[in-house]
Amino acid sequence: MATTASRILCPTLSKRVMSATEAAALIPSGVNVGMSGFTGAGYPKAVPQALAEHIRAHRAQGENYRISVWTGASTAPELDGALAEVDGIELRLPYQSDPICRQKINDGKMEYIDIHLSHVAQHAWSGFFGKLDIAVIEIVGITEDGRLIPSSSIGNNKTWIDQADKVILEVNHGQSAGLEGMHDVYYGTALPPRRKPIQMTQPDERIGEKYLMCPPEKVIAVVETNAPDRNSRFSEPDEKSRKIAEHLLNFFASEVEKKRLPANLLPLQSGVGNIANAVLAGLNEGPFNNLTAYTEVLQDGMLDMLKSGKLAKASATAFSLSPEANQELADNIDFYRDRIVLRTQEISNHPEIIRRLGIIAMNGMIEADIYGNVNSTHVMGTRIMNGIGGSGDFARNGYLSVFMTPSTAKDGAISAIVPMVSHVDHTEHDVQIVVTEQGLADLRGLPPRQRALNIIENCAHPDFRPKLRDYFERACASGRGMHTPHLLGEALSWHQRFEETGQM
Amino acid sequence: MATTASRILCPTLSKRVMSATEAAALIPSGVNVGMSGFTGAGYPKAVPQALAEHIRAHRAQGENYRISVWTGASTAPELDGALAEVDGIELRLPYQSDPICRQKINDGKMEYIDIHLSHVAQHAWSGFFGKLDIAVIEIVGITEDGRLIPSSSIGNNKTWIDQADKVILEVNHGQSAGLEGMHDVYYGTALPPRRKPIQMTQPDERIGEKYLMCPPEKVIAVVETNAPDRNSRFSEPDEKSRKIAEHLLNFFASEVEKKRLPANLLPLQSGVGNIANAVLAGLNEGPFNNLTAYTEVLQDGMLDMLKSGKLAKASATAFSLSPEANQELADNIDFYRDRIVLRTQEISNHPEIIRRLGIIAMNGMIEADIYGNVNSTHVMGTRIMNGIGGSGDFARNGYLSVFMTPSTAKDGAISAIVPMVSHVDHTEHDVQIVVTEQGLADLRGLPPRQRALNIIENCAHPDFRPKLRDYFERACASGRGMHTPHLLGEALSWHQRFEETGQM
Repeated sequence: MATTASRILCPTLSKRVMSATEAAALIPSGVNVGMSGFTGAGYPKAVPQALAEHIRAHRAQGENYRISVWTGASTAPELDGALAEVDGIELRLPYQSDPICRQKINDGKMEYIDIHLSHVAQHAWSGFFGKLDIAVIEIVGITEDGRLIPSSSIGNNKTWIDQADKVILEVNHGQSAGLEGMHDVYYGTALPPRRKPIQMTQPDERIGEKYLMCPPEKVIAVVETNAPDRNSRFSEPDEKSRKIAEHLLNFFASEVEKKRLPANLLPLQSGVGNIANAVLAGLNEGPFNNLTAYTEVLQDGMLDMLKSGKLAKASATAFSLSPEANQELADNIDFYRDRIVLRTQEISNHPEIIRRLGIIAMNGMIEADIYGNVNSTHVMGTRIMNGIGGSGDFARNGYLSVFMTPSTAKDGAISAIVPMVSHVDHTEHDVQIVVTEQGLADLRGLPPRQRALNIIENCAHPDFRPKLRDYFERACASGRGMHTPHLLGEALSWHQRFEETGQM
Repeated sequence: MATTASRILCPTLSKRVMSATEAAALIPSGVNVGMSGFTGAGYPKAVPQALAEHIRAHRAQGENYRISVWTGASTAPELDGALAEVDGIELRLPYQSDPICRQKINDGKMEYIDIHLSHVAQHAWSGFFGKLDIAVIEIVGITEDGRLIPSSSIGNNKTWIDQADKVILEVNHGQSAGLEGMHDVYYGTALPPRRKPIQMTQPDERIGEKYLMCPPEKVIAVVETNAPDRNSRFSEPDEKSRKIAEHLLNFFASEVEKKRLPANLLPLQSGVGNIANAVLAGLNEGPFNNLTAYTEVLQDGMLDMLKSGKLAKASATAFSLSPEANQELADNIDFYRDRIVLRTQEISNHPEIIRRLGIIAMNGMIEADIYGNVNSTHVMGTRIMNGIGGSGDFARNGYLSVFMTPSTAKDGAISAIVPMVSHVDHTEHDVQIVVTEQGLADLRGLPPRQRALNIIENCAHPDFRPKLRDYFERACASGRGMHTPHLLGEALSWHQRFEETGQM
């Protein structure tokens, strides 16, 4: 496969090759479309853009042309951006991070359902979101017998192909042909009451197929592309991120010393972003060896750790690599194929596996309150940032749940530690460790008022500590309930004040 | 066993028989004590009361004598009430429902950690709560070779016995000897990275032992008791509960018709209380047959359904029976033993099993907001009612999550549907179906603003609907984010108003 000029070896499917414009015209208004794509990897590059043009032309004639877009997670400007710009998306699920989408959603011009990533496949399969009409899936190639070589992400592709009536394939010649063999597509899931145990006990264990299966008669178009995933390199960790990483690594060392973690820790889940990158950089220089990862996304930092040998094995559902890291992957694809398994997100985020493996979940957040409730999604309680993604899957069912953020935002105008979060994605029951550059609060085994003191003194920025202490003390003295003392009239006043004055 | 006069057949342990007073004196101040008990079943009846007397005597001499009490879930006045009354509890976890405890917690005189019931055993085992010193466990009897016959609940008893340095056993002659053989104590759990799949695919499948194992050298006392569990019969379902049940049963019928549920539904989890009881009564007269239950607690309604044959099999970690139902159980113990499996709560609430079996989770709540966030625990945001219990285990990892409440409380002064909940236990991501006597809101596949309209129009009491619509419309018009429109300055004003005026 990797050595042939063509990547479409199946005679039946090679007859369905057409242009992106022709394929896009097969997607009518009003349908539900399941697209590939997870964290800016493996999304279709041509059909969504051609569809956006198609929609633009119809709109010019006064037609309201819109589809609903279901994906794995976030995609890129060529998909979310292009379709949102022409107001082509009626409803989007389960996750996005596109600036145009975000604006449309927060302006009330696009509907968005923000869903635990482990729930998506089963809810779609159960029919909870309605019928999936068409799947548009990027792949690396098609074997002679019609099996599909997955691309740089798998996400929900198996489910979209299974559930959709029609399938459009994008064969991307720009993706390394050496990805073949890296994937593990589990075909053992079922709807209850027919589910069986998933027989996996190690992060890198293979339990499925290397290929996606698709009945050829479903395939209505095959489009050839040649374009890279769009991801830029993270900036070098800043001082705050480095301090957050340092606090977390010290905590891990202390847990190992107390025999509450093995010397090689437990399988790591890491969100993406600058803080996650700093944590991975810290681990790459830290004292822990023979680490493993069971996570959603492999970013540059994970690749660095595999290369150095600090990370022995990694499981994910997607890459999210800079052009440099992507080149490194392609240049040493055999090395990485031995160490990486890409799975469906149904499995990468599965409660059963996350609980069994005992994942250390490390996720970013927007804000936490003094009792340890976490807001991951909403700015000032009303405007969506991205979405909950898989953070809830890992925080709820893992072994340890860590949430991290700098203690302030907007040059100190916003405190990331507030009296009450303006939106809750992770409740007090699911948040064990809170880390800012100021320090780390270990909330395990602490009742609410002790959690509050711990978070205020360890995590809040010193500029906001007196006001937080004042709120807490007055809440305790108010004569209301002392389990979780609050002043309801003031609980959200910090957010209100920011909206009115630009300063919490 | 059931036919012998003595219930302590093990010669070694029979030598450790002593009075409750003598046993209680073996529990020093400052220790962590793991006690049996789940939903008022299988809790120790004598040692906690004797300990309360012991503490009272020490207090009279000016000593601060306190212990921390860990259980399965709620117990009864003989345990929580007696110890709380003498201020003998420093910290309580993971769930309680005792009026004296509640008062002490809300007065700030007792610490309380409210925990997902599926997390307790693993967190205790991992040492997240500190060392467990002593276990006090009610059992039905001791076999000749020292195995322990579990009582009317298992809860965390396996973990307490495994983790504690010392064990005190209460052999309760008041519990039916016929319980022997009904239990299934799974000894296959481990700490990561040594966990294996739990090989269970049916609610009634047996995967463990009928007995609890305890090294005899750990047992420092055996106390004989003869007292029933304390549970009163629920009142007959009232009109509101019957309507809630009716809405839910109609929904199930519609889901079966749409092929989104099998004809015999999926394994049921049901909270306890009057609404749950009404739902079970409705199911007992409804069109669904060959039902199964995979739940925490078997209350009278479940027993009725087993008796009628509507319910084929049931798995739980505890009974919660009225005296009449308990007599029915004892009189027909062979019939029920064929149909009931009592498990550790680690397994009854296990994410792996709940996800695999595809549980229909049905839980009560205090309030929901217009976007479908649910408060299960806190009255007016500060005062704990009981705790989250297992509701989060089932709502997050199950197939369908249903939350139910009457639409008003306190004779109409309180709306159970509010602009923003004053505390979040179940986020929008985990709440699919909201039911009140007014109707049912199916939130699956709906973005936030559509959820709001659905909840307001279907679930809110007509007296509060205009005010909710007004809040929602003004929030939408406010120019803030349109993903989840809120007016931060008013979001909690309904609760504030209730505290100030006694009326929302």
